[in-house]
Amino acid sequence: MRKGRAKLLVGQTANRREEFDPLKRFADIYWLEDMDEEQQARVLPQIDCLYSHGWPKGLDAGKVSAMKKLRLYQAGNAGVNSIRFDLLGKDVVVCSNAGGYSDEVAEFAIGLMLAAGKSIVKFDRELRAGAFAHQRLDDLGRCVAFFRGKTLGVVGYGGIGRATGRMAKPFGMKVLAFGRHPVSDKGVKSLRGRAGLLKLLRESDVVVLAVPLTNVTRGMIGREELGAMRPGGTLVNVARGEVVQKEAIYDYLVKNPGFVYATDVWWPDKQGVESFSPDLPFLELENFIGTPHCSGPSAIITGTVGKGVVENLTRYFEGRPLKNVVDRSEYS
Amino acid sequence: MRKGRAKLLVGQTANRREEFDPLKRFADIYWLEDMDEEQQARVLPQIDCLYSHGWPKGLDAGKVSAMKKLRLYQAGNAGVNSIRFDLLGKDVVVCSNAGGYSDEVAEFAIGLMLAAGKSIVKFDRELRAGAFAHQRLDDLGRCVAFFRGKTLGVVGYGGIGRATGRMAKPFGMKVLAFGRHPVSDKGVKSLRGRAGLLKLLRESDVVVLAVPLTNVTRGMIGREELGAMRPGGTLVNVARGEVVQKEAIYDYLVKNPGFVYATDVWWPDKQGVESFSPDLPFLELENFIGTPHCSGPSAIITGTVGKGVVENLTRYFEGRPLKNVVDRSEYS
Repeated sequence: MRKGRAKLLVGQTANRREEFDPLKRFADIYWLEDMDEEQQARVLPQIDCLYSHGWPKGLDAGKVSAMKKLRLYQAGNAGVNSIRFDLLGKDVVVCSNAGGYSDEVAEFAIGLMLAAGKSIVKFDRELRAGAFAHQRLDDLGRCVAFFRGKTLGVVGYGGIGRATGRMAKPFGMKVLAFGRHPVSDKGVKSLRGRAGLLKLLRESDVVVLAVPLTNVTRGMIGREELGAMRPGGTLVNVARGEVVQKEAIYDYLVKNPGFVYATDVWWPDKQGVESFSPDLPFLELENFIGTPHCSGPSAIITGTVGKGVVENLTRYFEGRPLKNVVDRSEYS
Repeated sequence: MRKGRAKLLVGQTANRREEFDPLKRFADIYWLEDMDEEQQARVLPQIDCLYSHGWPKGLDAGKVSAMKKLRLYQAGNAGVNSIRFDLLGKDVVVCSNAGGYSDEVAEFAIGLMLAAGKSIVKFDRELRAGAFAHQRLDDLGRCVAFFRGKTLGVVGYGGIGRATGRMAKPFGMKVLAFGRHPVSDKGVKSLRGRAGLLKLLRESDVVVLAVPLTNVTRGMIGREELGAMRPGGTLVNVARGEVVQKEAIYDYLVKNPGFVYATDVWWPDKQGVESFSPDLPFLELENFIGTPHCSGPSAIITGTVGKGVVENLTRYFEGRPLKNVVDRSEYS
């Protein structure tokens, strides 16, 4: 049992500080960015929970090992792959902020699906370049997908995946869902296991990736998986760049000009930082759409990110069961 | 009463000819593009109905006046503004193909809304140009709209407008509908008249134009109407270019960089032909998204355009009431 008031360290966050005011009832709140090295040396050993959006800059092995009382790491992110699990003691519970981005990111996934399928990005670019060639009406129509009756495959049917499926329904799309757990949502076909993934890839016109980046999902879309997809299909990635194998998708796009990869998430550079300047020339391809990992930040603005964090930390302080506890074995 | 078999002339169409096979039961079908001048001179006086997608090329005043038996002009388009009403005798009934494009164009309208609000087109362009500036998470988030709880105003609540409203529902958007007729759809607020239009423009975050181009709607969005809109709003046009006043929207975009005009439809050039190279430099603006009137052609590919035409012509041949009869007073 903790003696005295709890001590919460905010590692880094883009949320407004006022969003954390409700937690002052339970805990003293320290902001890492406010403290110099001397203050950190004094405070870190007393901290019992840490909240951060991304692994806190400067929190090295030495500092983490000084945090002897740390019992909870609450992430601001839905995906927790940036956490240094190797540095965290085995008794530290890690919680994600899954659900904190669901509707925002799902809207974005639908936006990428439509921007790709309707050729909106490509046509706008061609018109600006004066390179649009007038076409017969029916030739033009063939560049513009119609989604009614088409199939949407959602890989990773958590908060984002489920919301994406919901938003695709009024288009009259069939929804296939791949995940670890069976899905019983009305009108959604649940698929599991290797055979289930391949079936989803084969039968879907649009595949949306909404899985966390774990040991299991890293590189899960490679040459074989792309080969199972429809050559005129669309792959939307709102998960993490590394879920898709970079060389495999690049080669596939070059060989299949009718296939589109529309992604908000990118591969890391040599320093391990997500880079919007990949070392393969994706940005020269006609059948690539890229946005700078901006689907999630809209949720920061709306306050839903902070809401999920504050709610889970309140559970912790009140001794109630935590939400979104991460299975650490999937990340080490 | 007609003597003998009906005679149908197909002026121009992008539909497959087989789509019209069911009409052979009722009528002899002539294809304008198959006939030389001599054949036309022989056939035109016998034609009692004309189907065309856009006003048929070469069908001048002399030829129309030779079509003494013409009683029905069935358009392949949902918007009939290209028809030469001045050449058609007063006893010719004109029918549009309203509804033949509803879901296709509504999907496109939602696509433009998301491409604009989520900054997808802009970010893809900046990344390709190497001009994307890294931003703080919260600054980035502010470039990405979140639609839950926002208001969608649909101007023209026909087939396309209604489908657009339906597709926006799972985003959690409020829907306002402006039209000539009261709307009783669940959850949709019906607005009419000048005051209703201004209220819709004031209260909507996104406005979708889905009206036909008539005497009443030509230029309906000008300086005053734009001034009523939210400076951070989005105007989506899937109707006709001329519904929006060109100089007014250009000036408004220059003065309001946070406002986006996303359009699939364009103004006519001096020859009266819709032009994707407007005489004002819209294509240099960051807050403009343009596509080459391609939302409708997808419906030709899916066969729904031909289906609507064949159904209405069947009604005509069977003497049943026609659908989508145009009020010719709105077009002359």
